[in-house]
Amino acid sequence: MNEAFFKSAERAMPFAFAVNSLNRLSERREDPAFLQDLRARSDARALILCRDMPVLKKGAGGLDPLFSLAEVEAVSSPRQIALLGAFADGAPVYAALLDDSAVELRSDASDGFLDRRVLAVPGRDDLTLVDMRSIALQGLLSAELTGIFAQAKALMHWHAHHGHCANCGAITRVAAAGWRRECDVCKAQHFPRTDPVVIMLAVDGDNCLLGRQPRFPKAMYSCLAGFLESGETIEDAVRREIFEESGVRCGAVAYLASQPWPFPASLMIGCIAQATTRELQVDGVELEDARWFPRAEARAMLEGRHPNKLLAPHRMAIAHHLLRAWVEG
Amino acid sequence: MNEAFFKSAERAMPFAFAVNSLNRLSERREDPAFLQDLRARSDARALILCRDMPVLKKGAGGLDPLFSLAEVEAVSSPRQIALLGAFADGAPVYAALLDDSAVELRSDASDGFLDRRVLAVPGRDDLTLVDMRSIALQGLLSAELTGIFAQAKALMHWHAHHGHCANCGAITRVAAAGWRRECDVCKAQHFPRTDPVVIMLAVDGDNCLLGRQPRFPKAMYSCLAGFLESGETIEDAVRREIFEESGVRCGAVAYLASQPWPFPASLMIGCIAQATTRELQVDGVELEDARWFPRAEARAMLEGRHPNKLLAPHRMAIAHHLLRAWVEG
Repeated sequence: MNEAFFKSAERAMPFAFAVNSLNRLSERREDPAFLQDLRARSDARALILCRDMPVLKKGAGGLDPLFSLAEVEAVSSPRQIALLGAFADGAPVYAALLDDSAVELRSDASDGFLDRRVLAVPGRDDLTLVDMRSIALQGLLSAELTGIFAQAKALMHWHAHHGHCANCGAITRVAAAGWRRECDVCKAQHFPRTDPVVIMLAVDGDNCLLGRQPRFPKAMYSCLAGFLESGETIEDAVRREIFEESGVRCGAVAYLASQPWPFPASLMIGCIAQATTRELQVDGVELEDARWFPRAEARAMLEGRHPNKLLAPHRMAIAHHLLRAWVEG
Repeated sequence: MNEAFFKSAERAMPFAFAVNSLNRLSERREDPAFLQDLRARSDARALILCRDMPVLKKGAGGLDPLFSLAEVEAVSSPRQIALLGAFADGAPVYAALLDDSAVELRSDASDGFLDRRVLAVPGRDDLTLVDMRSIALQGLLSAELTGIFAQAKALMHWHAHHGHCANCGAITRVAAAGWRRECDVCKAQHFPRTDPVVIMLAVDGDNCLLGRQPRFPKAMYSCLAGFLESGETIEDAVRREIFEESGVRCGAVAYLASQPWPFPASLMIGCIAQATTRELQVDGVELEDARWFPRAEARAMLEGRHPNKLLAPHRMAIAHHLLRAWVEG
């Protein structure tokens, strides 16, 4: 394991949600005095989420996601605050979750669609709600702020949907600066969940396997994927999911990279798998189609010049980079 | 990505809980007729768990974990049954969770310790309860059955502690052959959880970093480890945990292998990390000590011939194999 080993090991892959250089301060989450001093800092900032959607300030220079704690209160008193970490200069950044009632559904005809309905904060035309996917697709925030928002969204989704103790049903109490919930009745402790998902490109010589989920944009083919299950290795999950969805058997599996995927709280584990069979048997449920693509065709899809206008996944997704890594050898 | 790429990619690592060749039949879990026929098969078998402990039959040839469904009922009517999958011959295997009251704490002086207390099934001296760690450490079951038990334990631990809806507190109903819980009140769906944990060896040239948790067996040093958090890549989690526990900064991170770890439901993600600093600052909480070990010393620990009797982790654990992979280059 020399320089070359490491050089090849970790790839700088510019997909969304993967950049986050906050100091998470995880060892200080049980220190009330430290937390109190941190919260009192005038440079403390917060990201706001409501109904799973980021709330952003409209500015001349673009969208601004960083609110002072007083600005948060002026929007709505949050039902939940969690410490995400600190910037390099020590300024803390929090996630603030607003009650669903802080926003309202409103008709928006600004883009010509009369029946389009958007979420908005009443009386605050200086604010806008934009979903995480659009933020990443359109590059509305820096890579770093997009990554920090992914952390905020996964954590706040968990709080929003885990207010009760799964063990006994009682209402739980927040602890550890927002990173634990505790049950005072049965004493159970609950931690934010992250669901491992395997996402992979099966390859056979100069061909790779891509599939279409019914919900995909028209003409888009992508890598297969699925949740890793109890008692399963990453490699076994990769082989099982490929076989279930396409009927193709695989042998060796190689890990390439991982991506936080906040819909709502997954960890995408990206792999390349060596196919040992070719015949396809598409399940018709998870996938509506799957095909073997020669390398040249996959390259044309990545470069947006496929003769039949077939599309590769967007570069915000790890699937794009698995495909690109294979196409480029 | 040629044969050599894949050959080096996936290592056959003989750690515990990683072998499980069941067909999980995950695409058939919503098919009531199929499930009913499966359950009626005379060759259907079940693994039994009670209070997180496997229940095993004592036999002349060793311990037998496979019960017929009638045998399960004769021990105690299970509070929960889930379909783990099918053996190669099509015979289904289930996990059966017994009520805590099906077993009792009993004094056991068989090994000379008068105050030793064990769990036992009243009136059934033909059965014994052995914890998963002992099964793996002592090799009491085949690698395959140990792996299937890991799947059963993770799943049944989740059922045992997630009977209520985390969203609204109501009691939930089991669906999908034991792979989902549904809330009839708020309509939330809940899935078994698997918690990703990073476990890693930081290396700097011919030295590697090992630490001691206070709960470790005397004289044992092992890889550092910790839970991956919301919004974090595997690589960032590796770097964060090493820095928090030891003060060492790392650069590139390389994935090596993964291991299901049913205590209660983790996925160990094993990596090697390239250290970029040397100075140690041990946190004293998660670790009581951490040291740089020259390769020769680590090799002596793996081979049980360290002059000061320092020990490497047991070969059931992925930490052993990360260390061995590095020692052997």
